[in-house]
Amino acid sequence: MIFKTPTQYFLVSGASDGYMPLNAFDGALLQAGIGNTNLVKMSSIVPPHCQLISPITLPLGALVPVAYASMTSDEPGQIISAGVALAFPVDEDRNGLIMEYSAKGERREIEEKVRTMATEGMKLRGWEIKDLKSITIEYRVKKIGAVLAAVVLWG
Amino acid sequence: MIFKTPTQYFLVSGASDGYMPLNAFDGALLQAGIGNTNLVKMSSIVPPHCQLISPITLPLGALVPVAYASMTSDEPGQIISAGVALAFPVDEDRNGLIMEYSAKGERREIEEKVRTMATEGMKLRGWEIKDLKSITIEYRVKKIGAVLAAVVLWG
Amino acid sequence: MIFKTPTQYFLVSGASDGYMPLNAFDGALLQAGIGNTNLVKMSSIVPPHCQLISPITLPLGALVPVAYASMTSDEPGQIISAGVALAFPVDEDRNGLIMEYSAKGERREIEEKVRTMATEGMKLRGWEIKDLKSITIEYRVKKIGAVLAAVVLWG
Repeated sequence: MIFKTPTQYFLVSGASDGYMPLNAFDGALLQAGIGNTNLVKMSSIVPPHCQLISPITLPLGALVPVAYASMTSDEPGQIISAGVALAFPVDEDRNGLIMEYSAKGERREIEEKVRTMATEGMKLRGWEIKDLKSITIEYRVKKIGAVLAAVVLWG
Repeated sequence: MIFKTPTQYFLVSGASDGYMPLNAFDGALLQAGIGNTNLVKMSSIVPPHCQLISPITLPLGALVPVAYASMTSDEPGQIISAGVALAFPVDEDRNGLIMEYSAKGERREIEEKVRTMATEGMKLRGWEIKDLKSITIEYRVKKIGAVLAAVVLWG
Repeated sequence: MIFKTPTQYFLVSGASDGYMPLNAFDGALLQAGIGNTNLVKMSSIVPPHCQLISPITLPLGALVPVAYASMTSDEPGQIISAGVALAFPVDEDRNGLIMEYSAKGERREIEEKVRTMATEGMKLRGWEIKDLKSITIEYRVKKIGAVLAAVVLWG
């Protein structure tokens, strides 16, 4: 194996305005508590027996594997939302599945969609679902805004 | 070095419809046999002396470096294709080069294009080509479809 | 920790035309001296006490974490630019911040923008800036061109 397999995970979300879209995204990361790390985006599995923990303070500048949904918008007043959903199988020797979704629109709508996506992903595997978690955030853009919902892998 | 350098690689492809574009992509990954891993996208080199192996079952949830082409479409009936090409130099102490390409259109067309891209990449290096491999997949979208062709690095 | 935290970094830039956008990007990477490695994109922090070094020759095919701005264009004659800016805090136990920006337009304009982005990022953290570095590149597209400015992390 090139990389170690994660053994812990936690869920965070954040939203922010900023000078430019990347600044808004940076602000959303800071609000989520992961703004001073190096995020490496990956798709999108919770390894078997990976433990849910409360969000921790990550070492500054650490390289951190993360699955996330995000969106930026420069339309003042627009509502944007981002969510991730995690579906876990009854068979605990199998992995969980992470789905990400972001769009214009309210939190409730995006949360429902991303949870259905995770449910559909487990159906496709033919695996019965034991547990379905999600975290979603909604934000009304002031000038240039960003939302972020993330699963951070650690261990 | 932050990460270990891969010593093995293999080629896979897949295609699927799904509830949402990300579900279709997930289905394509599952069909390719890499749907239960955490893919870390990278650009796009085969290290020197890296060995081609047959596709293996990766540990569930493992972080896996991968170079891939993919595409999703929500136009029923549309044909979409994705391909990767790998060009290897005569001098085996040098690295191979991976090129990725995806587009609307048939497999043969995309395969020719991506192979030419890899050939051009070796020309740019001034390296004579010993071997050129590729894997390409074509898919006719039902409702929301995805194609994927990938080089998985391992070792 | 899944990955080791980088201890060194260096700045590079490059530009090139190419047969396809990905070939132009490959050419820009080659000109920057990082074209024969496997870049893993990350967002976008310089760990505390990470040392600036002169660009080094990386092992062929190594997996390398990198923060970069890039852009491709197929409009002959168009000027495209990419830049990264790094802001470092007075408190050296804190991390530096990397911002990336690319757009149509001249180098000077893009450099000013990306430096302001990094300055704003430090303001958002409430951290006083000790040092601000940047690297920016401008390129006039012949047929299909790409620009790249990057912070390579190593250690």
